[in-house]
Amino acid sequence: MLGTMIYGPRDIRFEHRPDPKIVKATDAIIRLSATCVCGSDLWPYRGIQPITQPTTMGHEYCGTVEEIGKQVKNIKPGQFVVGSFATSDNICAICQHGYQSSCVQREFMSAAQAPYLRVPLADGTLVATSDHPPKELIPSLLATSDVLGTGWFAADAANVKPGATAVVVGDGAVGLLGVLSAKQMGAKRIIAMSRNPSRQKLAREFGATDIVTQRGDEGVSRIKELTDGIGADSVLECVGTQESMIQAISSTRKGGYVGYVGVPHGVALDGEQLFYAHVHLHGGPAPVRRYLPELIKLVLDGKINPGKVFDLTLPLDQVAEGYRAMDERRAIKTLLRP
Amino acid sequence: MLGTMIYGPRDIRFEHRPDPKIVKATDAIIRLSATCVCGSDLWPYRGIQPITQPTTMGHEYCGTVEEIGKQVKNIKPGQFVVGSFATSDNICAICQHGYQSSCVQREFMSAAQAPYLRVPLADGTLVATSDHPPKELIPSLLATSDVLGTGWFAADAANVKPGATAVVVGDGAVGLLGVLSAKQMGAKRIIAMSRNPSRQKLAREFGATDIVTQRGDEGVSRIKELTDGIGADSVLECVGTQESMIQAISSTRKGGYVGYVGVPHGVALDGEQLFYAHVHLHGGPAPVRRYLPELIKLVLDGKINPGKVFDLTLPLDQVAEGYRAMDERRAIKTLLRP
Repeated sequence: MLGTMIYGPRDIRFEHRPDPKIVKATDAIIRLSATCVCGSDLWPYRGIQPITQPTTMGHEYCGTVEEIGKQVKNIKPGQFVVGSFATSDNICAICQHGYQSSCVQREFMSAAQAPYLRVPLADGTLVATSDHPPKELIPSLLATSDVLGTGWFAADAANVKPGATAVVVGDGAVGLLGVLSAKQMGAKRIIAMSRNPSRQKLAREFGATDIVTQRGDEGVSRIKELTDGIGADSVLECVGTQESMIQAISSTRKGGYVGYVGVPHGVALDGEQLFYAHVHLHGGPAPVRRYLPELIKLVLDGKINPGKVFDLTLPLDQVAEGYRAMDERRAIKTLLRP
Repeated sequence: MLGTMIYGPRDIRFEHRPDPKIVKATDAIIRLSATCVCGSDLWPYRGIQPITQPTTMGHEYCGTVEEIGKQVKNIKPGQFVVGSFATSDNICAICQHGYQSSCVQREFMSAAQAPYLRVPLADGTLVATSDHPPKELIPSLLATSDVLGTGWFAADAANVKPGATAVVVGDGAVGLLGVLSAKQMGAKRIIAMSRNPSRQKLAREFGATDIVTQRGDEGVSRIKELTDGIGADSVLECVGTQESMIQAISSTRKGGYVGYVGVPHGVALDGEQLFYAHVHLHGGPAPVRRYLPELIKLVLDGKINPGKVFDLTLPLDQVAEGYRAMDERRAIKTLLRP
């Protein structure tokens, strides 16, 4: 088959790769209905995360089961499945506590920008739908695999409760779906920080009540003005830079919650500053597997439409253009069709 | 009157000071039954926190109300009161959320190692008992003012729940009362990290089920051995150094909770390391005022005896020896009687 590889900064190639095969008895092979480019794929693409050798790319996926290993019991060939970007056995003590993305057997998926994919720990990683979903729901189902699951975790980690005031730092696809998640969890006021008109528009569609265009100290001052001077109950950090992290912590009221899901790059937190900020801080790789059944149901029931973050759809062989469009912020998120 | 001042590292003087007076209509003056030396007083004493000018010391107190300002309504002269080390109006939005130690009007108390003390925001800071308590309960009531309240917050911030496994990093008075707090909150297993025999003994009295003497990576390995390889549900960080903070985070299971109350000195947290640690992190100055009514009741009902952390009692004029004994770890905590 042909699959996606990165060779170096801004060097994405779609080239011959071995067809994936069952390696362990707990594996499944799936034929992808759709895959996409993640904001986190831009870290190596931009050279911020080093690439030591040509590497497969892609970790968001949904599709049809082609083949299963001998020990796979929950998943059958022919079923439509969605899986998390992190594999999990879903039975270890960490999984039982709901942190499947830190499962003792975790592997991060990394070859999903391809027509076929090997999924390790299929029983604990994949969730099957009862029927094959209609085609128009594929983008939203694909979104549950990571980008929605991650925005959802940001809102959950930020303890968004009915009536709360939530702030979302970052207007990428995760941040926008953080807005959607906060809305679903009952936030009364949702302040999206964005200076991009098309992203502001989508944020409002997803439930944002206010937009703040300022950043850094000015952004924090504006949030304080909007929250009686004390800051927000819940802040979702969806970027991963030092500036965004400090902006998030400083926008939170004393005793409030910061949920952070942007993979930190060059972030260092001063202990004393954090101490007096008095916030709750929680984040990490989103335990998408915990949320998948609920999120898939919300999509199938037509309650949410997270697939709207895909504002560019390309055939898989144009994957390099998909990266370029996101890098240049021409696209929020690129969906790829094998 | 005579009161305590610090002039420089290891230079504590007990000298003439002006008698405290009502300055604002919301103040009260109290005559202290007892005061004490805090672990955090050792930061300036040891020169780790700079002293720019001679400064009054002490922030833990209980005693009898002598005089009140014209606007004070909840507290009457003659009543026995305990107050938090941080003043609070107890009515602002931050206080209403239970974070009185970050009250918009907060001041940190700093002249309590003296026979008389001015307490600002008396109505929102002090809690009166219905009767004058018996003398033997004074040490335990004094403890609620900070050291117990802080250990309690560590356990609360670390989300200690019935049946949980808790680890306490730090065997100072706060850590030891963190053990007591975790026990009260129903922890099934409480692992105290200590290499000091007398502190280990008190930790066991307060409810520790296991003692770990190793520190750093070795300490973390030992905690993992004791917790099925995954780490503890709840970890109380009661020191405030880089080593203790990393030890606490690394001892926590994925998805678990770190409550940190040691005032951080030179602590820097790496964002990426924290992200993959996957823990909840919460701490800061303990909102003692939130807990005071409950803690005072536990003491008066004879349910807890936190005053046991005072293993040295001195007349107030020997305050300098009280500091020395703690600095040299000859005493866990020094109670001072005016």
